[in-house]
Amino acid sequence: MTYPTAAARRGSRTESVMQDMRDRIASRSLAAGARLPSVRACAQMHGVSVSTVVDAYDRLVAEGVIEARRGSGFYVSDRLVPLSLNDAGDRRSHVSDPVWVARQALESGEAMHKPGCGWLPADWMPDQDIRRALRAMARQPLAPLTAYGTPQGLPALRQLLCRRIGERGISAGPEQLLLTESGTQAVDLLCRYLLEPGDTVLVDDPCYFSFHAMLRAHRASVVSVPYTPNGPDLAAFEQCLSRHRPRLYITNSGLQNPTGAALSFEVAHRLLQLAQQHEMWIIEDDVLADFEWRPAPRLAALDGLQRVIHTGSFSKTLSASVRCGYIAAGVKEVAGLVDLKLATAFESGHFSAEMLLQLLRSGAYRRHMEGLRKRLAEAMTHTIRQLGELGIVPWAEPRGGMFLWCRLPQGISASDLARRALASGVMLAPGGSFSQAADADSYLRFNVSQSLAPDIYSVLAREITAGGG
Amino acid sequence: MTYPTAAARRGSRTESVMQDMRDRIASRSLAAGARLPSVRACAQMHGVSVSTVVDAYDRLVAEGVIEARRGSGFYVSDRLVPLSLNDAGDRRSHVSDPVWVARQALESGEAMHKPGCGWLPADWMPDQDIRRALRAMARQPLAPLTAYGTPQGLPALRQLLCRRIGERGISAGPEQLLLTESGTQAVDLLCRYLLEPGDTVLVDDPCYFSFHAMLRAHRASVVSVPYTPNGPDLAAFEQCLSRHRPRLYITNSGLQNPTGAALSFEVAHRLLQLAQQHEMWIIEDDVLADFEWRPAPRLAALDGLQRVIHTGSFSKTLSASVRCGYIAAGVKEVAGLVDLKLATAFESGHFSAEMLLQLLRSGAYRRHMEGLRKRLAEAMTHTIRQLGELGIVPWAEPRGGMFLWCRLPQGISASDLARRALASGVMLAPGGSFSQAADADSYLRFNVSQSLAPDIYSVLAREITAGGG
Repeated sequence: MTYPTAAARRGSRTESVMQDMRDRIASRSLAAGARLPSVRACAQMHGVSVSTVVDAYDRLVAEGVIEARRGSGFYVSDRLVPLSLNDAGDRRSHVSDPVWVARQALESGEAMHKPGCGWLPADWMPDQDIRRALRAMARQPLAPLTAYGTPQGLPALRQLLCRRIGERGISAGPEQLLLTESGTQAVDLLCRYLLEPGDTVLVDDPCYFSFHAMLRAHRASVVSVPYTPNGPDLAAFEQCLSRHRPRLYITNSGLQNPTGAALSFEVAHRLLQLAQQHEMWIIEDDVLADFEWRPAPRLAALDGLQRVIHTGSFSKTLSASVRCGYIAAGVKEVAGLVDLKLATAFESGHFSAEMLLQLLRSGAYRRHMEGLRKRLAEAMTHTIRQLGELGIVPWAEPRGGMFLWCRLPQGISASDLARRALASGVMLAPGGSFSQAADADSYLRFNVSQSLAPDIYSVLAREITAGGG
Repeated sequence: MTYPTAAARRGSRTESVMQDMRDRIASRSLAAGARLPSVRACAQMHGVSVSTVVDAYDRLVAEGVIEARRGSGFYVSDRLVPLSLNDAGDRRSHVSDPVWVARQALESGEAMHKPGCGWLPADWMPDQDIRRALRAMARQPLAPLTAYGTPQGLPALRQLLCRRIGERGISAGPEQLLLTESGTQAVDLLCRYLLEPGDTVLVDDPCYFSFHAMLRAHRASVVSVPYTPNGPDLAAFEQCLSRHRPRLYITNSGLQNPTGAALSFEVAHRLLQLAQQHEMWIIEDDVLADFEWRPAPRLAALDGLQRVIHTGSFSKTLSASVRCGYIAAGVKEVAGLVDLKLATAFESGHFSAEMLLQLLRSGAYRRHMEGLRKRLAEAMTHTIRQLGELGIVPWAEPRGGMFLWCRLPQGISASDLARRALASGVMLAPGGSFSQAADADSYLRFNVSQSLAPDIYSVLAREITAGGG
């Protein structure tokens, strides 16, 4: 990935200040009626001159976004109606909006091909096993199930999860585990626990698009660090630590989303040293762990859950409906997280936990995953070959899983292509949803399990020819 | 309820400023290392003199909670480890902590009597019906269920919910409904959508204790308005609006928790006028609606979902494990909420939604609720009689539901009683968890469905005699 040149960055400082303020207003980190930072503070914050800020504020006043009040500064224009995360006009046109991919994938009908979506096809899921678990649950008295669970979640399941994460080298007792509704809820709860509005958070570039949307909801300031095939670029990482003093870094160590890359031991070790020096927390979100053939190094394993908090779920492997995620952390952190969970979600689904326990105990899950890994490996080979014929090449060949991060032929815009393909019944995931890099729009993320239909490649071939010039 | 006298309030302004700062630090609305408001700003905010604030800050410095930095103000003492919601020592001793009741109720074993807990006994739940629904689900192909749902949630269920809330006079189309994981998650999502850190929120006094814990997590400043048997005290309500300019009011209209009281039409109408004048949002959390014999007036019905957002769930009536809550709001708000849900929870459980749909469609839920209302009415009569013999009297007789808000005999402290009863195997819910009023500790909330065991009354009798003096 290449990043904007220094010259390009200098190009429009006024615009960048304006955009930052617009973003803060859109994300409601500056609410209607709120006072903007003083011109001097803003200049300092952006490292620009006072006159640049005055210019930016004046132009925002002209746009009606903010208003000047005599003698007291600038304020966000008042309005009662709350702003949504993306408030402007037609949501469907925002191809690079982080939420766009999720929305398309969820809202598109059955007829749509979805190589851009983030999960497996429904018929890859263990329908029979889940039905068997349902029947087993229906046979026994449900009373313990229909009551509220303990705040940390089903003890037997926590015990079992400890053994599972133990296989990735992470040692934790059941008292260090907390069950949540989902992997997403796990990360969200941790963000609430760890972050103050305005805190800086590091993410990988490219990264799972939902991290951006979620961190925006937490009013965090997000800084992206380029990801290499062995983990984050350590030089850039260190620079970001010194410069932005982030409170938190969120990453996937096993099979990174969207690249499918994994951390090397060397990078893991050095990264933890840096995190310690700078007193930074790390969330290692491991939802794709079970797709690995052999476990990659885990930050949580090296760190012993001191400053790394490990999360996971079964939504990707089992069913989006079996709502059960988990957090593994230090005992002290778990206590605080339980309180926060009680305050904001009250409990997680005991029902899903029980079903999951059945599937894990019976061996059904293990057998399902063995089949899935093989099937994905075949789909991966197929997809790489098909895309190769169109000049679409993997950034790196993944060690497993469903995601393939690919570079388009020269001159093709991923967002243009996505917009045109959508009209032909193919939903793609353009790079701009995952990456802030200057060349993000040259990339697409493919889900190999959703990329088997020949139609997909004929649409791609046609639209690449049409759009390429 | 009586409130602290003006004299008592004036008594310790320094302590009140200190407590406010401690609360902000505990809730992390002021993070480690954050700068405190300037002495002048703080004085203005609290309506006290500058010297009072200087005194308060000096004492907090002496306590090690904050530190002074030369020439630049006061800062929260730096520490890496994040603060939990209640960070101090042994969590179990905090009888008046809002989370205490929830924690006790969830963590206490089967042997404990729980008149203080917030839900029905497991054996009051429709075990057979749920098992039948599970079997029905196990018979059909699950593919559509195991996939991710549409972001707003199962359309057929939304349609059915529209009819149900229509019976309370609220007219909304399915496009105005959004499904969530639970009622709690519904309110939490709305708080995220509507609130900025530091915003003021009105709640009833007494109110559902989780609102306090949740609003703390949102870094909102909470102002309580006394609740009367017909709704909030309007004079106090209006005063709060003028004085604190709250952004939001959260209430239960149907059967208020913990009092079981309901809104009158007159109060509802005037309250909405006030909300409009002051451009305030209202969340009407209606989780107890199905316990009513006849629907009480609903703010959302009168307002037409303009500035009132209505929420509900089935956790209290059906099963805490059937995770399905809902939000009814204006179309514009729903669009924004969907984005926020995608960003922070991704989806809600399609599985639970499907099970709920089965139970609602088959009539099983209706029959279950008819039985439940009768059984609760009997338990209510029984509990009132038994408590009466101990001199514990209802604040008002509820129109239905499970909660009874009761005043203890003169001189008995609810938190003391709760602590002692817990040691004898009875978990109570002391008034301080629900109320900020000066006499809060004279009240207990009883759940009549959990108050049938004779042991409960012998423990209460013994402890009241022992503690009363």
